[in-house]
Amino acid sequence: MKDPVYKLIELTGTSTTSVEEAVDGAIKRANKTVKNLRWFEVIETRGSIEKGKVQHWQVTIKVGFAVED
Amino acid sequence: MKDPVYKLIELTGTSTTSVEEAVDGAIKRANKTVKNLRWFEVIETRGSIEKGKVQHWQVTIKVGFAVED
Amino acid sequence: MKDPVYKLIELTGTSTTSVEEAVDGAIKRANKTVKNLRWFEVIETRGSIEKGKVQHWQVTIKVGFAVED
Amino acid sequence: MKDPVYKLIELTGTSTTSVEEAVDGAIKRANKTVKNLRWFEVIETRGSIEKGKVQHWQVTIKVGFAVED
Amino acid sequence: MKDPVYKLIELTGTSTTSVEEAVDGAIKRANKTVKNLRWFEVIETRGSIEKGKVQHWQVTIKVGFAVED
Amino acid sequence: MKDPVYKLIELTGTSTTSVEEAVDGAIKRANKTVKNLRWFEVIETRGSIEKGKVQHWQVTIKVGFAVED
Amino acid sequence: MKDPVYKLIELTGTSTTSVEEAVDGAIKRANKTVKNLRWFEVIETRGSIEKGKVQHWQVTIKVGFAVED
Amino acid sequence: MKDPVYKLIELTGTSTTSVEEAVDGAIKRANKTVKNLRWFEVIETRGSIEKGKVQHWQVTIKVGFAVED
Amino acid sequence: MKDPVYKLIELTGTSTTSVEEAVDGAIKRANKTVKNLRWFEVIETRGSIEKGKVQHWQVTIKVGFAVED
Amino acid sequence: MKDPVYKLIELTGTSTTSVEEAVDGAIKRANKTVKNLRWFEVIETRGSIEKGKVQHWQVTIKVGFAVED
Amino acid sequence: MKDPVYKLIELTGTSTTSVEEAVDGAIKRANKTVKNLRWFEVIETRGSIEKGKVQHWQVTIKVGFAVED
Amino acid sequence: MKDPVYKLIELTGTSTTSVEEAVDGAIKRANKTVKNLRWFEVIETRGSIEKGKVQHWQVTIKVGFAVED
Repeated sequence: MKDPVYKLIELTGTSTTSVEEAVDGAIKRANKTVKNLRWFEVIETRGSIEKGKVQHWQVTIKVGFAVED
Repeated sequence: MKDPVYKLIELTGTSTTSVEEAVDGAIKRANKTVKNLRWFEVIETRGSIEKGKVQHWQVTIKVGFAVED
Repeated sequence: MKDPVYKLIELTGTSTTSVEEAVDGAIKRANKTVKNLRWFEVIETRGSIEKGKVQHWQVTIKVGFAVED
Repeated sequence: MKDPVYKLIELTGTSTTSVEEAVDGAIKRANKTVKNLRWFEVIETRGSIEKGKVQHWQVTIKVGFAVED
Repeated sequence: MKDPVYKLIELTGTSTTSVEEAVDGAIKRANKTVKNLRWFEVIETRGSIEKGKVQHWQVTIKVGFAVED
Repeated sequence: MKDPVYKLIELTGTSTTSVEEAVDGAIKRANKTVKNLRWFEVIETRGSIEKGKVQHWQVTIKVGFAVED
Repeated sequence: MKDPVYKLIELTGTSTTSVEEAVDGAIKRANKTVKNLRWFEVIETRGSIEKGKVQHWQVTIKVGFAVED
Repeated sequence: MKDPVYKLIELTGTSTTSVEEAVDGAIKRANKTVKNLRWFEVIETRGSIEKGKVQHWQVTIKVGFAVED
Repeated sequence: MKDPVYKLIELTGTSTTSVEEAVDGAIKRANKTVKNLRWFEVIETRGSIEKGKVQHWQVTIKVGFAVED
Repeated sequence: MKDPVYKLIELTGTSTTSVEEAVDGAIKRANKTVKNLRWFEVIETRGSIEKGKVQHWQVTIKVGFAVED
Repeated sequence: MKDPVYKLIELTGTSTTSVEEAVDGAIKRANKTVKNLRWFEVIETRGSIEKGKVQHWQVTIKVGFAVED
Repeated sequence: MKDPVYKLIELTGTSTTSVEEAVDGAIKRANKTVKNLRWFEVIETRGSIEKGKVQHWQVTIKVGFAVED
């Protein structure tokens, strides 16, 4: 069996509620077009503010997936 | 119309419960004295421990707001 | 009284649910063998993905505790 | 409406003249194949030297765009 | 004479044209309310994209100024 | 002739033997689907351990390639 | 009691003698206009040289203080 | 089953020959006193020079292992 | 003779007086329980403030020591 | 043919006008005493301010050149 | 005896084969013109790609040597 | 008058006593062979340990000096 190779893509998920939901959203979206998602790393956490409150959490992640041979 | 200028201030919000609540608290406080808050970035996440449990989440953010002319 | 000295250890807590629960788990485990835990810092937030969903949040923290004389 | 998800791609634009022109070139090229470009961040600024002069400015940027549902 | 103390503030200047103009705009604005500006450091260079072109360069700088006694 | 534009993708190559073989594997795989590979940069070197020995070297690289017009 | 919020400001203290004295000077100056100073972090240590000797140590710190409600 | 917790320790392995052998040596040594080693990350690669040649490669790694309940 | 392996531990020393004394205190404490201390690296310099003055310098160091076979 | 070796030197170029001119100035100066300049990387962008305007852009670069055998 | 002073220079060694050989080449070259080489640190590992294979490993190191009095 | 160009060199000064003395030693040594020293930045602070005590503080600095035309 060959040594696996992984590709990493970078996504920014957003949520009005939490860091976790923003990450879930990004992974859910990636899963529509990419198979074999394996891991993620949080790169940056930002957000927009509207009327003195957090409007959107914006969490940027790298997502790694196995590249098929 | 002139090109806008933004100022960034750094705040540490705290919460006994979650990262999100700590950020909310810091933004809520900033909103009392500063208008036009636009975005934030999480800089550091720390916390104090008391009796083997998280006592306070301490989340440091940069908050950007439009400087009025 | 002498100036205190602290030691920092690095732990990765995991949770199927949230960043906060992963950190809580790591601190709870540290508290079984180490006394005088004082603070923590989040170093890295990663996670594993299974079937297109976050399986485990993996949050690495440094935990500081007072070294007894 | 669902919370938007963004993808980030990394490009190196080049120019014999300026940082700005190198970035413009990279964004112009991205715009040929990707819709909904929203923002960029400069990651690295390098260049090649030929006969004691800057030959090409090489500016690496991350470009974010909205992923359509 | 006492040893001087400086304060640093963080600003994001914007320009439709260039990095330099964005920095100039931020410093010009700071000069309206702060005296004794001495130096700046570029912290981050980003921008917004509209219709496949750079709309605004957004350059974040730290600006240092002498604090009067 | 126009100023070239490059794209960078991020890959993790793996090998039971060495850093170099892990990188070779990632580049070999990239070469199947992308033309004009030009350079790489090592971003991170990690590995898995099994029975007290390195099981897989996991080397993450950025690979740059010329985007055709 | 509400969860406290802290603000961080950045200062460069200077001294002809030592890192410690430069930090002391910056904190002393901050204390004239800000109440409730709690902690500092050293961000950067630089200095000017005159006639082959250190003329001024320039130590940049972040200082945190409790924001009153 | 509870969510696992991992501990990370930092080691510097050395070798007169290669990066890989230095890492192998550090992991082999860790395995004598710690069970359940799972992964490592290379933190720093340095070396000593003697008579104009590399004397020892010094590779610092973090090693993660599962903490038993 | 085998290639040596070193372990690194992280400590925060404190002092009311100076960076150097804080480091000395941490090393002195480490020396009580660990043999073969060889080198240290300063990781972070912080401090607590009380009544507008530095109360404690808090200097975090990594200390390396030879692991005996 | 032997594998080439390059040396990197660090320079700060200055200009009253632009980042590009500051870099050009540094490379032009390096070219007076060093042959075979090949590439540069921008390390830091700072500047001095006089009367509320940028006086000098100060751009620090690493310049690489082939070392002759 | 006086406290020693060291100088650090930065070199990029290259090799068609391995990281180690690239470093060896850089140190060998440095040893032709500089005495008292003591240690090195790997700063960056990159490489050029030709026909889908690594053409040259390019490893940038800092090399420290004792400055004679 | 032309825009000045500066060169930066990296030195490690050592002292059995303090950070400041280590920096002084490095600058004093640089001043023997280089004119027009202007500023320095502390890059890294390390040290050697002998018999459980700091033997040498090793402070690495970048020193900037004006390059004459």
